[in-house]
Amino acid sequence: MKSIIIASTSTIHGSGYLEYLLDELAVHFKSAKEILFIPYARPGGISHDDYTNTAAKAFAKIGKTIKGIHECSSPEDAIENAQGIFVGGGNTFVLVSQLYKNNVLLPIKTAVTNGTPYLGTSAGSNICGLTMNTTNDMPIMYPPSFKTLGLVPFNINPHYLDPIEGSTHMGETRETRIKEFHAYNNQPVIGLREGSWITVTGNKRTLKGTLQARIFEYNKAPYEIETNSDLEFLK
Amino acid sequence: MKSIIIASTSTIHGSGYLEYLLDELAVHFKSAKEILFIPYARPGGISHDDYTNTAAKAFAKIGKTIKGIHECSSPEDAIENAQGIFVGGGNTFVLVSQLYKNNVLLPIKTAVTNGTPYLGTSAGSNICGLTMNTTNDMPIMYPPSFKTLGLVPFNINPHYLDPIEGSTHMGETRETRIKEFHAYNNQPVIGLREGSWITVTGNKRTLKGTLQARIFEYNKAPYEIETNSDLEFLK
Repeated sequence: MKSIIIASTSTIHGSGYLEYLLDELAVHFKSAKEILFIPYARPGGISHDDYTNTAAKAFAKIGKTIKGIHECSSPEDAIENAQGIFVGGGNTFVLVSQLYKNNVLLPIKTAVTNGTPYLGTSAGSNICGLTMNTTNDMPIMYPPSFKTLGLVPFNINPHYLDPIEGSTHMGETRETRIKEFHAYNNQPVIGLREGSWITVTGNKRTLKGTLQARIFEYNKAPYEIETNSDLEFLK
Repeated sequence: MKSIIIASTSTIHGSGYLEYLLDELAVHFKSAKEILFIPYARPGGISHDDYTNTAAKAFAKIGKTIKGIHECSSPEDAIENAQGIFVGGGNTFVLVSQLYKNNVLLPIKTAVTNGTPYLGTSAGSNICGLTMNTTNDMPIMYPPSFKTLGLVPFNINPHYLDPIEGSTHMGETRETRIKEFHAYNNQPVIGLREGSWITVTGNKRTLKGTLQARIFEYNKAPYEIETNSDLEFLK
């Protein structure tokens, strides 16, 4: 049975890495002693080792050890044998390029579909959607495809940002960008604000955290849904 | 001799479409009666016709007519015969996909290198750089390549945005994104603030407008340059 947490962000303002999620993660990964970490997205260009250390420090607080996938001789075997998987945030273009290069997209999809608990934050959440077309990241690397895991039947927009009142900047708002996405694509998009996450348990999908999320459906005005909403309607 | 204007934005806050640039454009396009407009980037998903009308209204103020490339039976011939070319802003992924699909990237490069005056705003400026890897746009379409016109020997980041003081949002700042770009690429990037533009006249490249621009070079701390700076050092 699928068991997935899709979080908007790893870190909320004024709190440590993963801190706001640790209670939830202790339950989510209760059957795992060691969690396989995929550091490919390299936020700020940091090394796989440094990024893995950051994740390890956070998970140590709930008694879990972390192994970086880059330390494993076979990434595919590492995924198949993982007790839990965590894909961290950073740049989605870099992450997806590396997932394709190492042939691990399908193994991750298979493992998670078969019940390996998964956590994604930011870029690691983006890839749970049908495609990475609604990432906010800069396209600093050219991946072989924008197709991602499709663990949920919609697209994710993490770090969802409301229009800034009084802004004089002429760059597109997030809402305009997603509207442009729907000029060429018809799958729904969920704008997940920082501090929100989605849980997937089998076929049940639920919005969690204290905030509303913004839903963008093809040919429909965007609207808000409350936390604890059931997301089965979204497909 | 190359004659190019690479503008950060078409519109500055509180002023009409292209208004702040019209005096400059009257000179830039002095030899052209009709300008070929490339509306492929479709800001907000608007139609090619509607977008072309917007451009036509602005250029009417300086006595120029506009023809949309989508109205021409052969886009390649239209470019070869153009008295001037304007590529408008919108979504860079859509723009570049359409430029490849219609086989017009090389014809534009040839025409502009041979002296056809060119104006780019936002996405239309982005493509003047070596690659589109430093666009701010959402990847709503998958182009065949991120390689662009290379009319200047660096990359452009239009709508450059300084970090917002006191922001609690955890998404990456523009500066962080460009730093991540330099983890995998080594060409310089110019962050062009809204209201700035670059002129290219033959081999002379100059920063114009009233603002400073921010320069990002590989393995170097970012720094500011003054308006009217010569950009020949940037390569």
